[in-house]
Amino acid sequence: MRSPNGIVTLLSDFGAADPYVGIMRGMVLRQNPKARVFDLCHEVPAHDVETGAFFLASAIGRFPPGTVHVAVVDPGVGSARGFVAAHAAECYWVGPDNGLLDRVIDEDANSSVRSVDVDRLGLRLHSRTFHGRDVFAPLGGMLSGGRFGFPAVGTRLDDYVPSTVDDSPRVLFADHFGNLISSIPGSELENASAVEIAGRRIPVHGTYADVEPGELLALVSSYDLVEVAAREARASDLLGVGRGATLEVLS
Amino acid sequence: MRSPNGIVTLLSDFGAADPYVGIMRGMVLRQNPKARVFDLCHEVPAHDVETGAFFLASAIGRFPPGTVHVAVVDPGVGSARGFVAAHAAECYWVGPDNGLLDRVIDEDANSSVRSVDVDRLGLRLHSRTFHGRDVFAPLGGMLSGGRFGFPAVGTRLDDYVPSTVDDSPRVLFADHFGNLISSIPGSELENASAVEIAGRRIPVHGTYADVEPGELLALVSSYDLVEVAAREARASDLLGVGRGATLEVLS
Amino acid sequence: MRSPNGIVTLLSDFGAADPYVGIMRGMVLRQNPKARVFDLCHEVPAHDVETGAFFLASAIGRFPPGTVHVAVVDPGVGSARGFVAAHAAECYWVGPDNGLLDRVIDEDANSSVRSVDVDRLGLRLHSRTFHGRDVFAPLGGMLSGGRFGFPAVGTRLDDYVPSTVDDSPRVLFADHFGNLISSIPGSELENASAVEIAGRRIPVHGTYADVEPGELLALVSSYDLVEVAAREARASDLLGVGRGATLEVLS
Repeated sequence: MRSPNGIVTLLSDFGAADPYVGIMRGMVLRQNPKARVFDLCHEVPAHDVETGAFFLASAIGRFPPGTVHVAVVDPGVGSARGFVAAHAAECYWVGPDNGLLDRVIDEDANSSVRSVDVDRLGLRLHSRTFHGRDVFAPLGGMLSGGRFGFPAVGTRLDDYVPSTVDDSPRVLFADHFGNLISSIPGSELENASAVEIAGRRIPVHGTYADVEPGELLALVSSYDLVEVAAREARASDLLGVGRGATLEVLS
Repeated sequence: MRSPNGIVTLLSDFGAADPYVGIMRGMVLRQNPKARVFDLCHEVPAHDVETGAFFLASAIGRFPPGTVHVAVVDPGVGSARGFVAAHAAECYWVGPDNGLLDRVIDEDANSSVRSVDVDRLGLRLHSRTFHGRDVFAPLGGMLSGGRFGFPAVGTRLDDYVPSTVDDSPRVLFADHFGNLISSIPGSELENASAVEIAGRRIPVHGTYADVEPGELLALVSSYDLVEVAAREARASDLLGVGRGATLEVLS
Repeated sequence: MRSPNGIVTLLSDFGAADPYVGIMRGMVLRQNPKARVFDLCHEVPAHDVETGAFFLASAIGRFPPGTVHVAVVDPGVGSARGFVAAHAAECYWVGPDNGLLDRVIDEDANSSVRSVDVDRLGLRLHSRTFHGRDVFAPLGGMLSGGRFGFPAVGTRLDDYVPSTVDDSPRVLFADHFGNLISSIPGSELENASAVEIAGRRIPVHGTYADVEPGELLALVSSYDLVEVAAREARASDLLGVGRGATLEVLS
């Protein structure tokens, strides 16, 4: 098990309009004033655990071993759902027990998952609507400081089974550029000529610059998944589709 | 008085579209290259000192003692309004003399407030429109580095009287999730059955998960204020109201 | 040549909706776990190299000497365009060879520019669409850690000529507040009485507070350029103009 390296990342659906994320940063620092706190992403669509899980998993292998990743997309906040912590892929992961950590846990056959014992850790639920502040951020700070070993977090969940990821071929989300990121492995484009989406046949290319500005193309995204994009334009707008749209690789 | 801990937070209405906040980060670091700079929030509605003061006060007790909080919501930038710095609630606070720091100063009976002597500190007003860069960020950096004690900031304002916070019952703002945060203390919900807003009677519950998706509820927000929300939906849209809307707790 | 100070800034057109920027932060840290990573701005309009170059240059003199600035606005990602690194204005600058660094390089007569030798540095292009992750962030981390001197980055580009900046009088962009930032040097307002834009004559003042709320004014922006603004209102909306609009200083 990796020693914590003092780095803490935050992911949430809290957006930027409020001080919620700022307060979480402070609550990490109150537990570990030396912690180095970085944002992974805070624009997960509101309450969208599935996209949150995907974004969180995109951090695997992208931060130094021993990083503590704190994730909060939590429509069930304040209900009976528990708190989980995992050691997986050389890092620590903390979040609500609602599937948000499942992609990460699933990725590493040696994942270790524990139920967070809030009382034993001295965490107080001041609010029933902001466990990011009351539990997840402080816990991330504690873990990053190495004050106690991972087992002290709580009982081992030996029977933890990640929920099955829905791998039906579809658009997972449109990104900031209007690129459509699908659930189809990029390797499926190897011998493919085109992708069919929204009733159109989109040719396969290597990168955006291989087509003319405004032209549509299918390619392997940086997530190693099939992506439908347009050079210097928004494929989501050109095709009029987004999350959930179906697509098919044509050979 | 707390020693500075090297942490500096930034709050503003500068948004993310421009490099303004990035430049402020740099100007903190130029004064104290070891400073650890974190964002509190930069999406305070433009020129809205009242909401800025509320967001700033939400940081009380959420960062380690000795943190320097720099705040810039400053419609009067470049005019004759002064610069103030305060020690309150175990932290330092820096901002324009326009009421932005008043909630914080009001919170601590032992607040110490000083007028910032820009000339004496060697701060140059290069611009009449960006004192965040020219004064507030550098001053935050200076204070965080402990190069001089707080009294060196400028003359003590013994007669500083925070402006009275308007505590009339109303919606302060709608947050990222469309939750309506009101000015009414959460304790008023203790024996209440409902909240009336926009001509509707909204029942009181403990947390979002206590109602069905899409259903409206009133609850105690994480700010310890009355909140009107909807489970996995936007109360602001469902009710068609936002900042300034009146509401009443029904017993 | 300045020694790196461990600070790395990031600028891009990646926005906040995705984990792209978060992943870049991690990739800096994987190369230099002690790096201190700060955002300059990530809301450069998509694919807009010209505005990106302007925003990047706004960091000159605003960060401590030895800072490494990583910039990615890269419509040609994955094509044959190269990677450049520069030492200019006491800092390091890294980005695609598409003009993004030209304003910075142009600013310092002693700029040193090098072509990045990706292979020699051991950087692997895992993706043809995310060189921010695969090249620019890791390179920024490497440079910030001082593991090798700047010359090791790659071949010196002695014949590098920055593209000419278009200095025709026009609006460069509207900022978060709707202020119109132009390409005209602020010094031209010294003896001017007004600015003509969108068929209207806008009087020159010192700062926003010199006019009534809602009133239009022309002033010297914090970029030291002519700005057309409105007090506590959006000049871009009031005038119905934005990027590219022409304007003229009237004496």
